[in-house]
Amino acid sequence: MTFEEKIMKNCLTLAKKGKVLPNPMVGCIIMKDGKVIGKGYHKQFGGPHAEVNAVNDAKMNGYNLKGAALFVNLEPCSHYGKTPPCTDLIIKEQIKEVVVGMTDPNPLVAGKGIRKLRGKGIKVTTGVLESQCRELNRVFTTVITQKRPYIILKTAQSIDGKIALDNFSSKWITNIKSRKLAHELRSICDGILIGRNTAEKDNPELTARLNRRPKNPVRIVIDKDLKLGKGLKIFTDKASRTIIIHSSKHKGFRKYPGAEYIGVRENKYALDLNDLCRKLIKEKIYSLLIEGGSKTLSGFVKEGLFDEVYAFVAPKIIGRGISPYQDFKLDRITKAKELILNKVIRLDNDIVLNYKNK
Amino acid sequence: MTFEEKIMKNCLTLAKKGKVLPNPMVGCIIMKDGKVIGKGYHKQFGGPHAEVNAVNDAKMNGYNLKGAALFVNLEPCSHYGKTPPCTDLIIKEQIKEVVVGMTDPNPLVAGKGIRKLRGKGIKVTTGVLESQCRELNRVFTTVITQKRPYIILKTAQSIDGKIALDNFSSKWITNIKSRKLAHELRSICDGILIGRNTAEKDNPELTARLNRRPKNPVRIVIDKDLKLGKGLKIFTDKASRTIIIHSSKHKGFRKYPGAEYIGVRENKYALDLNDLCRKLIKEKIYSLLIEGGSKTLSGFVKEGLFDEVYAFVAPKIIGRGISPYQDFKLDRITKAKELILNKVIRLDNDIVLNYKNK
Repeated sequence: MTFEEKIMKNCLTLAKKGKVLPNPMVGCIIMKDGKVIGKGYHKQFGGPHAEVNAVNDAKMNGYNLKGAALFVNLEPCSHYGKTPPCTDLIIKEQIKEVVVGMTDPNPLVAGKGIRKLRGKGIKVTTGVLESQCRELNRVFTTVITQKRPYIILKTAQSIDGKIALDNFSSKWITNIKSRKLAHELRSICDGILIGRNTAEKDNPELTARLNRRPKNPVRIVIDKDLKLGKGLKIFTDKASRTIIIHSSKHKGFRKYPGAEYIGVRENKYALDLNDLCRKLIKEKIYSLLIEGGSKTLSGFVKEGLFDEVYAFVAPKIIGRGISPYQDFKLDRITKAKELILNKVIRLDNDIVLNYKNK
Repeated sequence: MTFEEKIMKNCLTLAKKGKVLPNPMVGCIIMKDGKVIGKGYHKQFGGPHAEVNAVNDAKMNGYNLKGAALFVNLEPCSHYGKTPPCTDLIIKEQIKEVVVGMTDPNPLVAGKGIRKLRGKGIKVTTGVLESQCRELNRVFTTVITQKRPYIILKTAQSIDGKIALDNFSSKWITNIKSRKLAHELRSICDGILIGRNTAEKDNPELTARLNRRPKNPVRIVIDKDLKLGKGLKIFTDKASRTIIIHSSKHKGFRKYPGAEYIGVRENKYALDLNDLCRKLIKEKIYSLLIEGGSKTLSGFVKEGLFDEVYAFVAPKIIGRGISPYQDFKLDRITKAKELILNKVIRLDNDIVLNYKNK
């Protein structure tokens, strides 16, 4: 690891302290004469940027910033948003060098900040620990560039890829360690989404209850024609918000207490999942875990609306049964999109395969 | 690793030199006064046992065996087979101590050798590196106890467990590294088996041609009613023996040159796979790789006739398509048998999952 990478790693550690979505997580470190003179991070949505906090920290420590080097995991902004442009501050303080992790995917910035600094004679290095920087702000990047939540598809399946028998029996395919990890995934997502069939067959709680400190996601059920029966746990248990997604054709229907209702456009065959995604962003659902069933999972794959796949594979052969994406159809095998195998986690005899879609 | 385990490991290294199936691979080391005085291994089927070779080696080296310790990965035999009992030799030579890796699964021995030695006051330690010893002789153990080949089921599949589209298109699901490893599996097996459908759709060579030093397995195709067309590579390319398995009901049919024909009993629905296995043992097929398609794979799973599963998983979602075991049916998910996850091998974005059935 180079010196610059080490400092950038510390920026990332700082950045993670912020709870800022849909803003990016940003950490900033200012160095002068080989030592750290200021640190800062973006603390909350709409609040001062990491660079501002770091500059103020350096000044509080009694330092002059002239000739200093500023490290930041995301390109400094060059536009007036909720705060003035950080590039102007950097220029004003006569900082000599800026080291950047990744360019800002926000189309309002997208390289303009870097160009502005370089135009003022400031030395700018980019792409330091770039993949880690991108990983940290993957949700922000997806939200800002695609106007939709970061989407994770999750299945619990047998070796032969079955999520249930034909009779929908599917309880406890995977082991307890897998289920705990699945609940951790729930905790790091803002929302969890399933289809009506799964809601009715499994009557799930959709909580992260196996976690020590569960942070329950918002529960979202696609129920296009409002056929869900009442009495399901998602309506009665108050563990989290429950949102029912239905066709916007339906008006003036009877709503179950314990749920919110959001109408979504229909396209030819089903609900328009792109419209659904836009609506979820409005509800502050920036990351979404999709847990099935096959119709729901297939819909998101068909539209290319996913960023990661988690397949929890139990050491069993099920044979005839339900496949997770069986409503998705390729006409040629060469058209199957190659995903990137990201992580492989062994949990006793279960194995968890995590893929990225890029 | 204890001292005894280190010596046992060397016994296993010696044992591996033998090409002895359907006999077990056995290595033997004799120690006296803290040093190795004799070594031997079972060289070929029907030849002298490892213990005999080690005793002779010690004598050639000018040693008296009285009071020595003998290490061997498999329990010494106590019966007259192709050679006299090794226990008698050990007793005659006044060896004081015997360290054994695993008891002999051969029902003619199965602990009798150890009891006989102990009955003569010889100290016997068992179970040293037992799992490695069992692993080394897994084919022998299966052949001797189950009277069938050691069977490996192999699939090349997508994340969602599909081996082909509905139209049977399946070429190149996995990457070149996976295909090379699959060819290594072919090389270590005596036989490779597929069903008629796969033979016709894919017209495969079933060779280990991607290996640097390919050892091609015997090619076996199940063609119950002798419907296979001629002109397939397995009939014409002479790369290895080809055996056609058909119902023994059929007599006096026309045989294609380039193949041998073996009739197998029929049961209610299909060929009797247990009878098939017995017939393969007669053909010296002690290890068998089953490569599909789903009807063939499902048949072996239904009968519980398998020892290992290799799932080569490509980083793709296929959706609708053919599942590897779709002709096998469970009535309850709790009846799915738990396999043991043995090895996980990452090959770029492919992942290979190896399971044991025990």
